[in-house]
Amino acid sequence: MNYKIDNIKQLIIKKSLKLDCGQTIEDFPLAYETYGKLNEHKDNAILIFHALTGDQFASGINPITKREGWWDTAVGPNKAIDTNNYFVICANVLGGCMGTFGPKDINKITNEPYGLNFPVITIKDMVKAQEALLDHFKIDKLLCALGGSMGGMQLLQFCASFPDRTFSAVPIACSSSHSAQNIALNELARQAIMADPEWNKGDYGKVKSSPRNGLAVARMAGHISYLSESGLQEKFGRKLQEKADYEFSFNADFQIESYLRHQGYSFVDRFDANSYLYITRAMDYFDLAKQYKHGLTEAFKGQETRFLVISFSSDWLYPTKHSKDIVIALNASGANVAFAEIKTDKGHDSFLVDEPKFLTTIKGFIDSSYEVYRK
Amino acid sequence: MNYKIDNIKQLIIKKSLKLDCGQTIEDFPLAYETYGKLNEHKDNAILIFHALTGDQFASGINPITKREGWWDTAVGPNKAIDTNNYFVICANVLGGCMGTFGPKDINKITNEPYGLNFPVITIKDMVKAQEALLDHFKIDKLLCALGGSMGGMQLLQFCASFPDRTFSAVPIACSSSHSAQNIALNELARQAIMADPEWNKGDYGKVKSSPRNGLAVARMAGHISYLSESGLQEKFGRKLQEKADYEFSFNADFQIESYLRHQGYSFVDRFDANSYLYITRAMDYFDLAKQYKHGLTEAFKGQETRFLVISFSSDWLYPTKHSKDIVIALNASGANVAFAEIKTDKGHDSFLVDEPKFLTTIKGFIDSSYEVYRK
Repeated sequence: MNYKIDNIKQLIIKKSLKLDCGQTIEDFPLAYETYGKLNEHKDNAILIFHALTGDQFASGINPITKREGWWDTAVGPNKAIDTNNYFVICANVLGGCMGTFGPKDINKITNEPYGLNFPVITIKDMVKAQEALLDHFKIDKLLCALGGSMGGMQLLQFCASFPDRTFSAVPIACSSSHSAQNIALNELARQAIMADPEWNKGDYGKVKSSPRNGLAVARMAGHISYLSESGLQEKFGRKLQEKADYEFSFNADFQIESYLRHQGYSFVDRFDANSYLYITRAMDYFDLAKQYKHGLTEAFKGQETRFLVISFSSDWLYPTKHSKDIVIALNASGANVAFAEIKTDKGHDSFLVDEPKFLTTIKGFIDSSYEVYRK
Repeated sequence: MNYKIDNIKQLIIKKSLKLDCGQTIEDFPLAYETYGKLNEHKDNAILIFHALTGDQFASGINPITKREGWWDTAVGPNKAIDTNNYFVICANVLGGCMGTFGPKDINKITNEPYGLNFPVITIKDMVKAQEALLDHFKIDKLLCALGGSMGGMQLLQFCASFPDRTFSAVPIACSSSHSAQNIALNELARQAIMADPEWNKGDYGKVKSSPRNGLAVARMAGHISYLSESGLQEKFGRKLQEKADYEFSFNADFQIESYLRHQGYSFVDRFDANSYLYITRAMDYFDLAKQYKHGLTEAFKGQETRFLVISFSSDWLYPTKHSKDIVIALNASGANVAFAEIKTDKGHDSFLVDEPKFLTTIKGFIDSSYEVYRK
């Protein structure tokens, strides 16, 4: 990545954090951003968990990349998650590359970037780190926590690990454990990165190089999985890229080719390849049921949190079945749960784009939760 | 690839073949294999078109790779395509790497492999080259022609271009034109190959090197698209690879990871990376409707061929909708067409594996066609 990460908010986590892999970390930075104001009763706080390639800059313009925040469609003044009313917190995940402790950080012992000496982290580790933010802001209980994709996985873990820390929760387009196809797609991405000789067994940071090609290919694979067949067909079909006919070459003849290449190579400027490895690994390892003797139902036992589980009809990365399995377990554990499948052809990425039915649904849920929860 | 291609059957095509790209080729080899015996009336011949990574060795043991032929489940004595009764022909496609003229061949002018100086070929070019085989064997009309995936695309083109040369036709799990998602998946594979510095702009043949990593990643991407989510889940789920728990590393912890790596890296021994580029390009360029002023219906106008179109319920690479569009056009053109969607969770690869309902269906169709057609 090309960006310098400075002038950002960082909380230094002083507590020792015992990771699932067995190692312990302490005194590490957690980068975060906030939007809106925390009110006197501290009952208007919303925590947002980001997905694989997200960061703490959910709303407005990302001050590092100068591009729109990843959830600017949903978060901001007068938007579905209205920062005129609510105090929104979002943190960069452990293992990330936007200021939270991750593999591109300098190992003080070797004075070189950690690379693959960074401990393998899990979704649970990410969530434990972020709980410290609530203590930092002296928030006993959030009004709501939301997350899409890997953000939803963090949210499920957060609710299971800290059942008293949010009044309501909206897991979106996610899963309680990765399917074989999910793992396969992530492994494809990892193999693309590790196949790049510039990756250099993770040590590219020492020589100020980076596996740009491998990471771009990984991102292209990801991008295909985020969109639906019908959505791609409607947007691109077989349209040619500024030409009247085939060129009979390997240049980008089709618009979809040009689009994919652009998505791949613009991504490498803002993301660290080793972070991509670590975060995808955490996703693959996530298996909430496995943490409890009696499975997913036990994970949610005794929950007082109000849940709204959301899936998208054309999402083939985390199909509705994954969400329904979560709903079934929540119901079996006696939790308060609503479920909505939003009909759309925008695929997995539906939660990131302007999808009015989705935005109206989360707005209604958050606002009505606040009516009940406000002190 | 590591194999020496010798002791194979090659027909030297003497006629000039004007390619869609505008170039003309002549005196080029077409590698083929046959199974069974052509009868006296020459009315028992079946032509099989292979898919992206197939070759002429459909049945028995492939003499070059020493592995099972790619369609040994369907073709052989007493099998669905019974070589006790029928004479089966299969040719390696133009642009391929198993003895037919392709980018790894030596350009007699430069005395070096063609690499990217090989002309960009199309499905129509492939089919025109293979028509010469019928003349070679003095077969006026085939009993049947079959093809799955890209083989089905060749078959549709063959029927449109040479409407009198087969009595019956079975296009399987294919499309009359690639969708944006199909193109995207192929472009992902091409980008993986071209991202490998060993690819060297296609000139790796000069230095006896090859983009092994890039081609392996391309194959992994392909492999994911050939299987269904439910099929992968049933076969692999979250099973670990000979270990009791996560290793907290980037080794292959899950069986699906190990499987994918194996599929990727075993493929590079038998396939040429530039062939992969050329053949995927031909698939993306294929758009049968575009060749005719009045589209697909005109492509099939006046067909006397009996069609059986087959799709698989869990195929997300060429979903049933693609097959139905072909059936609609065939019906609209007044052709004789039957259609079967086989219920299976084996995904796109269903035609290559032991799927009894599929094998019974094609056997019944071929045998009953022979009853009508035999002289």
